[in-house]
Amino acid sequence: MTIHDLVTPALVVDAAAFEHNLVTMSQALPGGRLRPHVKAHKSVAIARRQAAAGHRAFTCATVREMEGLAAAGLGDDLLLANEVVDATRLGRLEARVTVAVDSLETIAAAVAGGVREVLLDVNVGLPRCGCTPEDAGALADEARRRGLVVRGVMGYEGHAVGLDDRERRRDETRQAMEKLAAAHRDVGGDVVSAGGTGTFDLNDLATEIQAGSYVLLDTAYARLGLPFREALSVLSTVVSTSAAYAVADCGLKALGMDHGNPSIYGASVWFCSDEHVTFAPSAAPSEERPRSFRVGERIRVHPAHVDPTVAYHERFYLLDGEAVIETWPVDLRGW
Amino acid sequence: MTIHDLVTPALVVDAAAFEHNLVTMSQALPGGRLRPHVKAHKSVAIARRQAAAGHRAFTCATVREMEGLAAAGLGDDLLLANEVVDATRLGRLEARVTVAVDSLETIAAAVAGGVREVLLDVNVGLPRCGCTPEDAGALADEARRRGLVVRGVMGYEGHAVGLDDRERRRDETRQAMEKLAAAHRDVGGDVVSAGGTGTFDLNDLATEIQAGSYVLLDTAYARLGLPFREALSVLSTVVSTSAAYAVADCGLKALGMDHGNPSIYGASVWFCSDEHVTFAPSAAPSEERPRSFRVGERIRVHPAHVDPTVAYHERFYLLDGEAVIETWPVDLRGW
Repeated sequence: MTIHDLVTPALVVDAAAFEHNLVTMSQALPGGRLRPHVKAHKSVAIARRQAAAGHRAFTCATVREMEGLAAAGLGDDLLLANEVVDATRLGRLEARVTVAVDSLETIAAAVAGGVREVLLDVNVGLPRCGCTPEDAGALADEARRRGLVVRGVMGYEGHAVGLDDRERRRDETRQAMEKLAAAHRDVGGDVVSAGGTGTFDLNDLATEIQAGSYVLLDTAYARLGLPFREALSVLSTVVSTSAAYAVADCGLKALGMDHGNPSIYGASVWFCSDEHVTFAPSAAPSEERPRSFRVGERIRVHPAHVDPTVAYHERFYLLDGEAVIETWPVDLRGW
Repeated sequence: MTIHDLVTPALVVDAAAFEHNLVTMSQALPGGRLRPHVKAHKSVAIARRQAAAGHRAFTCATVREMEGLAAAGLGDDLLLANEVVDATRLGRLEARVTVAVDSLETIAAAVAGGVREVLLDVNVGLPRCGCTPEDAGALADEARRRGLVVRGVMGYEGHAVGLDDRERRRDETRQAMEKLAAAHRDVGGDVVSAGGTGTFDLNDLATEIQAGSYVLLDTAYARLGLPFREALSVLSTVVSTSAAYAVADCGLKALGMDHGNPSIYGASVWFCSDEHVTFAPSAAPSEERPRSFRVGERIRVHPAHVDPTVAYHERFYLLDGEAVIETWPVDLRGW
């Protein structure tokens, strides 16, 4: 099977780039130094590759991701890096389960659901979940009083991971991690979980980094000059052309759009509709004139944000050049 | 079952608003005057409601939508209002199938795939698919020469449907439909298919309107003062609160984001992450102070764009107040 046999739009992964990303990260952060975030790929098949590369502990964003990894036998050490008010499904899993807590209510939910281990989630600058650093110690005391094991703290520097300038990224990360360190002193435990693809080599405090995007990469992260390659794209078919532009069958239902338009190399993207992307050929500096696109041609559309792109698709196709060598279900979708 | 039993985020449909929308549209555009676009809901269950309201011909954006409606016995008159370069799956359907064509290649694909009826897709101002009005006649001749039945023309005034000002919307629609009328004179046939929710009562030329969003509605269309109600929202659970804001479990994987942030009534939305929306309570003019949100509370998040929101979810829950009275699979997802 080749790319010409696929129904488009289709998520495709370049095998060489994927392997490069896997190896590069596992050399930088071997074994338990990386706790891969499965939200970026939502796929047991990719999680297995990460486990084979030495990373046996995973980060999840949803209960369904936790359930899927546990059912696949990847439950050595699963962290739900998110708050839940009903932990019943987590408590039933045959796996080592740790859940983030940041309030009396989420501590009570962990207890009621039968989850035994927690991390104190601390707000380190991104206005999202997480208690204040000052409240972390008292919440940890309460969790222990109610019989929970407090393994440590987590705090995501999400406001820093995407900053273009590496020194600003380092500086914001350091400030965020000072807050997390303060909380950690009050909370105790041996886990300090933080970080993402943009700060994987800048976060010195965390005992484990929660990066996910590195393995597939998107155009937003590619801008940062990280040592990872754009392994993921959406294979698409040109269905219409005109004098000024061309249209391919990859639109809003095949692409996460919160980071903006996707990229097509050799073209400039005008806009996306539900099932279409309209784009105009553009000449590279080295070329005399723009390339042309013809109806029926297959092109690669590179998403600006991996995670919500993947969540629209049923499967990945792993490619060696144009040959499809494996199919990986996106089996951890939904909630 | 009530909303408190649902795993969140969950797509919920208010039954009264939904019925209002169905009735309002079927009174304005009875029977074949409306060819509902199923891309907005991707659900056989909702298509059945539209058929029961008198609309037996449907518009689709993908081959899978066509297959799903045909398999459900809703194949009286299915239009794929989109170009395909491989019509094999369409040719196999046990249904009346019409496909849009705008080039020699797409005409050849219809012939090769065994599809017998086509509409000439004409660009009426939106830079997407569609031939120029001037080319339509010659392409229709070619289609007939190759044995296809040319039923008429279609042309979507997508650049007009969302304009805030009703008179501008009417004016842009009229200009677009003048182009379609010119093409129709050259093409012949008795179908002139066009329009959308924003122009359903402004498009005088079309013999049938392809509206889809009307039945669920989003905040972008709600701004236009149309006679339809916001029936759809994403039920979500507040999982974290702080002094300044609250966070609920509805993010980029539960919401189409191309039209911008969703709305939460009684709050202002700050931003969305993969699985979260951060928002701050806001006081309405009639209120002394903002309402507060508490952890565990269920809230409604109103998407800015229905279509790519629905495509993230496995099912709708139809609600009568807080009671869940039906479950509708979103069974026409994918391609």
